[in-house]
Formats: sequence, C-alpha cells, structure tokens
Amino acid sequence: MWNKKKEGKIFIISGPSGSGKTTLKQKILSCKDINFTYSISYTTRKPLKGEKNKKDYFFVSEEVFLSKVQHKDFLEYANVYGYYYGTDKAYVSSILKKGHNVLIDVDIQGASKLKKLKSFKAVYIFILPPSLSELKKRLEKRKRDNKKEIAKRMKVAIKEINQAKKHYEYCIINKNIKNMVEDIRAIISAELLKSSQYNFKEQL
Amino acid sequence: MWNKKKEGKIFIISGPSGSGKTTLKQKILSCKDINFTYSISYTTRKPLKGEKNKKDYFFVSEEVFLSKVQHKDFLEYANVYGYYYGTDKAYVSSILKKGHNVLIDVDIQGASKLKKLKSFKAVYIFILPPSLSELKKRLEKRKRDNKKEIAKRMKVAIKEINQAKKHYEYCIINKNIKNMVEDIRAIISAELLKSSQYNFKEQL
Repeated sequence: MWNKKKEGKIFIISGPSGSGKTTLKQKILSCKDINFTYSISYTTRKPLKGEKNKKDYFFVSEEVFLSKVQHKDFLEYANVYGYYYGTDKAYVSSILKKGHNVLIDVDIQGASKLKKLKSFKAVYIFILPPSLSELKKRLEKRKRDNKKEIAKRMKVAIKEINQAKKHYEYCIINKNIKNMVEDIRAIISAELLKSSQYNFKEQL
Repeated sequence: MWNKKKEGKIFIISGPSGSGKTTLKQKILSCKDINFTYSISYTTRKPLKGEKNKKDYFFVSEEVFLSKVQHKDFLEYANVYGYYYGTDKAYVSSILKKGHNVLIDVDIQGASKLKKLKSFKAVYIFILPPSLSELKKRLEKRKRDNKKEIAKRMKVAIKEINQAKKHYEYCIINKNIKNMVEDIRAIISAELLKSSQYNFKEQL
C-alpha cells in the first residue's frame, strides 16, 4: 500500500452568524469515522451558561492572554466586542502530530490572517445560508438579537459572503443538516485524497 | 438559493494499465445521480471485438484524423503504437454547455499536454493500484500480455506513478471497486462545492 502522510490536515470553517456553523461543527466532531479534533480557542470572555473550560474555550485572564500574544503563541488572535480570542500554535500542532485532522472555527478576518501565514496550510470552507431572506428569518427565530442587532448582523453577513469567494476554497449551502454534513464529508475525503498526501518514493 | 454555474466541469482520469481505470469509468457513468458524460475519443485504430463506433470511440480513417489535426480540432492527440487518439474540442464543449460534467480518459502524456493549455481547466485524478506487486499480479491474471510485455508495462507504470504527484491533483488507490467509487464521488462532490462554482453577485 502507498504510504499516506501521518500528519493531519487543518480545516478552517467560517460562516455568518445564523448560517448553521455551530451545528455543523458538532456533527463533524461526532462522526467517529472521521478523525477530527476541534481546535479549542483561548478567550478572555467569561463562560456562558453551560460552557466548560478546556472544552468550549480555554478561558483565561487578559493578563495571561496578552502574555501569550507577546510570546507569539497564537496563530491568529482578534479582539471582538472587547474580548480576545486566539488559536494556540502549539496546541494545533500537537493535534496534527497525533495524525488527527483539526477543525478551526474562525471569522473571515481570522481566516484571512491565517491565509497570509506562509508556513500555515489549511482548507478554507465557508458556510452559506440558503438565502439572505432565510438567514434573516433564522436570526429572528432564535430571538437572541433585537431588530437593530439583526440588521447589523445582516450587513456583516452580506459583506462576508461577498468576500467568501476570495478567501475560501469551498462554499457549502446549509439547506439542511443532512446535506451539509454530506457536503463537508465529501470535502474532507477529497482533501485527504490530494496527491500531496501521499509518499510514493519509499515504494518506487 | 445561491446560483451555481450552469457549465459542467472536466475530470481527467489516468492510471497505469491494470489500475482499474476502465471499471471505475463504467461505474461513474452508471451513477445516475452524478451528471456525467464520457468524452469519446477519436481514433484511427480498428474497433476491438464488442467496441462500437460513437460509443467507445469515434473510429475514423487516418486521413480524417489528420485533417482534424490540421484544423486544430483536438484538445490533445497522440500516436500510441502507430495509431492516433484525440479529444475533440467542440465535442467536449458541447457537453459542458449542456451542464454535464465530462470524464476524459487520457494517459499521463495526454494529461500533461492538457495541463499546459491555458484556456483549459480540469480536475486531474490518478488511479493507483494497491501496490506494485498487486499491479503485476493483475496484469498476469488478465492474460492479455506476455512476460516481456508485462515487464514493459510495469516499467511504464513505475515511471507514471513517479510523475503522478506532479501532474495530478488527486490520487485514488484501487483497493476495491466500492472504495474507489466512494473516493471519486467525494472528489466530484467537493470539486462542485468549490467557491469558483458559485455566482454570488446576482443576489447580493
């Protein structure tokens, strides 16, 4: 048998708020036949109800976060609404070295920063809502934001979708969960069949 | 719903003699849920038993073939063991315009010629035998070639596999038909989810 690379591959997933990104993430991680580990981010915000340290986030103080910034521990980090979020370099490479694939959930700004890193290679996937009107309906339905906030989120979504073609290699439309999971599985399988995943020389 | 491009995509499949390429081709074309049309080549060789004109090949005279060469009708053509084989440009684009995906079966030389065409975009897939020893077994089993011919085919196969990483984006190992079909379906699905397949502007 031809040898395959033992290191895992990094998959970056982004999508506007309400696109169904979180549900997709959970679905992928629960598929036992695909070897995935979620890259837990560091954050300085407080845990929401039900969120657990070292599972949803590494919850740290601003002091700890900024010291990690100084030590260049993060692949990328951002300040969103006053709180820091960051992806730890050493943490991601420890997962890859185990042969696991890594799922990183970042916004479009984070993704574009990661794309600029020369030594960092990943597959960029963008989750699209079925349509803009459907996205608005979903945001209204979850009753988390007021009208003004929803209008703001819609504006951001349009801007992000506009940029998606530039930054992301793949786009998945979230028509329904089943289709979306099938689509992402196809992308993952195909990416692991890329010629660059093989080592031929040893056998030839 | 976000619009997708109406034109089909071209998939190039190559693999050493005995890799299972022909079986794979038949399987893909029989999957009714994937919209595939096989690109029938032109050839100057005589039909083998059971081969049909306009189904397996367009069987033409050398005169007709060379006149098509002169008219630049072919995307690529080659002379293999004294016979010409060629892929007709107009024929391929007529399939694409119908929104069908096109499957083209060429050897590594043909594929590398196609890759050099600036206006021609395709997905390049290489079929690998499970191992070199398994390939040799398969060639022996089908009793089509003598020892010398098998040794020659093995030499060509090693050379081709060595070049596969350079010319082909994907490699599929033919462990068994079921896996191989699953792999190629994943590649096709993923390729049709590429961001370049979408038209966003109309809706934003």
